[in-house]
Amino acid sequence: MTKSRLEAFSDGVLAIIITIMVLELRTPEGHEWSELFKVWPTLLAYVLSFVYVGIYWNNHHHLMLTVRRINGATLWANLNLLFWLSLFPFVSGWAGETHFAAVPMTCYAAVALMCALAFTVLTSVIVRADVSNHLLADALGSDLKSKLSMTGYVVAVLTPFLGQVGVVLSGVCLIAVALLWLIPDRRIERVLEHEHLS
Amino acid sequence: MTKSRLEAFSDGVLAIIITIMVLELRTPEGHEWSELFKVWPTLLAYVLSFVYVGIYWNNHHHLMLTVRRINGATLWANLNLLFWLSLFPFVSGWAGETHFAAVPMTCYAAVALMCALAFTVLTSVIVRADVSNHLLADALGSDLKSKLSMTGYVVAVLTPFLGQVGVVLSGVCLIAVALLWLIPDRRIERVLEHEHLS
Amino acid sequence: MTKSRLEAFSDGVLAIIITIMVLELRTPEGHEWSELFKVWPTLLAYVLSFVYVGIYWNNHHHLMLTVRRINGATLWANLNLLFWLSLFPFVSGWAGETHFAAVPMTCYAAVALMCALAFTVLTSVIVRADVSNHLLADALGSDLKSKLSMTGYVVAVLTPFLGQVGVVLSGVCLIAVALLWLIPDRRIERVLEHEHLS
Amino acid sequence: MTKSRLEAFSDGVLAIIITIMVLELRTPEGHEWSELFKVWPTLLAYVLSFVYVGIYWNNHHHLMLTVRRINGATLWANLNLLFWLSLFPFVSGWAGETHFAAVPMTCYAAVALMCALAFTVLTSVIVRADVSNHLLADALGSDLKSKLSMTGYVVAVLTPFLGQVGVVLSGVCLIAVALLWLIPDRRIERVLEHEHLS
Repeated sequence: MTKSRLEAFSDGVLAIIITIMVLELRTPEGHEWSELFKVWPTLLAYVLSFVYVGIYWNNHHHLMLTVRRINGATLWANLNLLFWLSLFPFVSGWAGETHFAAVPMTCYAAVALMCALAFTVLTSVIVRADVSNHLLADALGSDLKSKLSMTGYVVAVLTPFLGQVGVVLSGVCLIAVALLWLIPDRRIERVLEHEHLS
Repeated sequence: MTKSRLEAFSDGVLAIIITIMVLELRTPEGHEWSELFKVWPTLLAYVLSFVYVGIYWNNHHHLMLTVRRINGATLWANLNLLFWLSLFPFVSGWAGETHFAAVPMTCYAAVALMCALAFTVLTSVIVRADVSNHLLADALGSDLKSKLSMTGYVVAVLTPFLGQVGVVLSGVCLIAVALLWLIPDRRIERVLEHEHLS
Repeated sequence: MTKSRLEAFSDGVLAIIITIMVLELRTPEGHEWSELFKVWPTLLAYVLSFVYVGIYWNNHHHLMLTVRRINGATLWANLNLLFWLSLFPFVSGWAGETHFAAVPMTCYAAVALMCALAFTVLTSVIVRADVSNHLLADALGSDLKSKLSMTGYVVAVLTPFLGQVGVVLSGVCLIAVALLWLIPDRRIERVLEHEHLS
Repeated sequence: MTKSRLEAFSDGVLAIIITIMVLELRTPEGHEWSELFKVWPTLLAYVLSFVYVGIYWNNHHHLMLTVRRINGATLWANLNLLFWLSLFPFVSGWAGETHFAAVPMTCYAAVALMCALAFTVLTSVIVRADVSNHLLADALGSDLKSKLSMTGYVVAVLTPFLGQVGVVLSGVCLIAVALLWLIPDRRIERVLEHEHLS
């Protein structure tokens, strides 16, 4: 089975998710600076979500570089990831419009956590589909960055229940995890270069 | 004629259909859990429609793997399938917002039925365009799964007229057909492997 | 310059135009059949616009098959076509919501006319960019179908000013032109087959 | 690392940005010409934004033709450009709906300025990623057109503060810069032709 259509479809869905989030930025009703300032929480949520979807596109791109065989399970594990990513516009808009209230923040972090779990599932399905592909297994190695992210997401899900300080802490965790991943994933890139594939 | 642009265009349309459905998930007005719970029927309808469009993308992908010749009739049979699939966001949103009322459920099932018929038409147009391609004809064989699905859709169209119990039965049929197809279509994959094309 | 990105970008824009039109189909407020029937003019306008955009994708696909050289003028002639096509969701929604009032019908036909003119411009720009390509020039030959369509569009623009009967005549013209093009463009396909390129 | 997925993803995002702007064109409430005329500022803003995004697609296409190596920094510089471009639908809709009020005009020009800066950053990241690629460095040469554009954008950001005349001047600057770029970027095309790559 070809991986090019899987990539094309995933690129399409990710491109749409990252772009329709801007539709949550409703045009202000007046034409004063004060009206624009009312939009800032939605804009801030948009920036964070844009970075998150960008990170997933980036990592998906890297992951697919190592893949040689795709089966039915891979297709569905990939669709599962795309489903959770597609909820970003919803939770992003909700968090922004409520000026980062506790429940929307918990939901935002929960969606981020589910995306991370779905990416882990996709990776392991791909490894299992092609056990002879040491390229990918080597590239992943001990996954410190993933474990740090998961911890960050779980903290971000729970802290909003502690009140206003918890909401701020939740936001700090989500931003910290995003910054952690802005550094591109050198592990896979490095192994690929060793194999002269890149 | 090339099949790559047909695939690219179909991937694009399917990616947009599967993603814009999330726009039907309107952000709740308040910021409490109770507000989020009001969204659950729309979310449930979204999950089911996401799975359906995913199944069609999956089967479309498999079908196209076997195709060698594309003519004008294939292009229009493909557009016909995309048309019916594009109605999913509409019926999905309507079914969710009315908390699965009888008429929207019948319409949802009718769209699912029309998609299945359009896929059958596309398959037979492709077979007729290239009668020498035994690959596809062999792969389809006796189409038990398609017949089961058609029966399920017809039942799901009719039962909502029987009242509340019928609506539940309609939903059960739609979910059952989706589960039936979540198992990827091994028939085509198997024949392709025999031919050493996969 | 490569034509693959021009095709990919055009496919993307056409896929989005054809799909976002479904967003004009607002979910009915109630859950009765009577509520659904109120949507029929928008649904009818959607079907016609879907067919029109499908025809342009189909013809664009055929036109690009013959192209060997792309320059800056081609890129802009292509964007000009995409611009006029992108107005279909707007005029389609307006015509449907006003139950095919005179002014929206004239606007709809005017957009269809501008698309046809833009396609003619694109074709002639492509022919001029590569005068040695007899393939395309031969394929076009005497363009009876295009002239018939233009006449149909001009009639459809003008007749709505004559009152209710004129609006119906305008709709008949638009549907007749669509049917004329549903027959795929054999001219280009035939020449390509002679050259053993297809 | 492959550049094809970077192009595919960018094409997808640009195609969506250019197309969803039409959703800002709300269907008029009545069905008279007078209702349509109320939409003209939004339509004018749409035309200008369509041309701007078209220019960026065009220049992105040309820039990528010269690229041979892509690294993590390139991916993020590209996402940064796409982020600023994704704000066009927002500022375009706002400028149109407020009939080109001062603050929205300043914001529109500021987004155009940020896009230009992001494109400059992307270009320099690409040059640094592959210093041995004289093709691109030669093609850029002394960047008069970019400097003229930047000046135009800065003027367009500032003049709306001077009142109604300033708003008109801002619009004139934005249109002038667009016209400057409608002439396709011959620099890169010329160098590529010398190298017999085009």
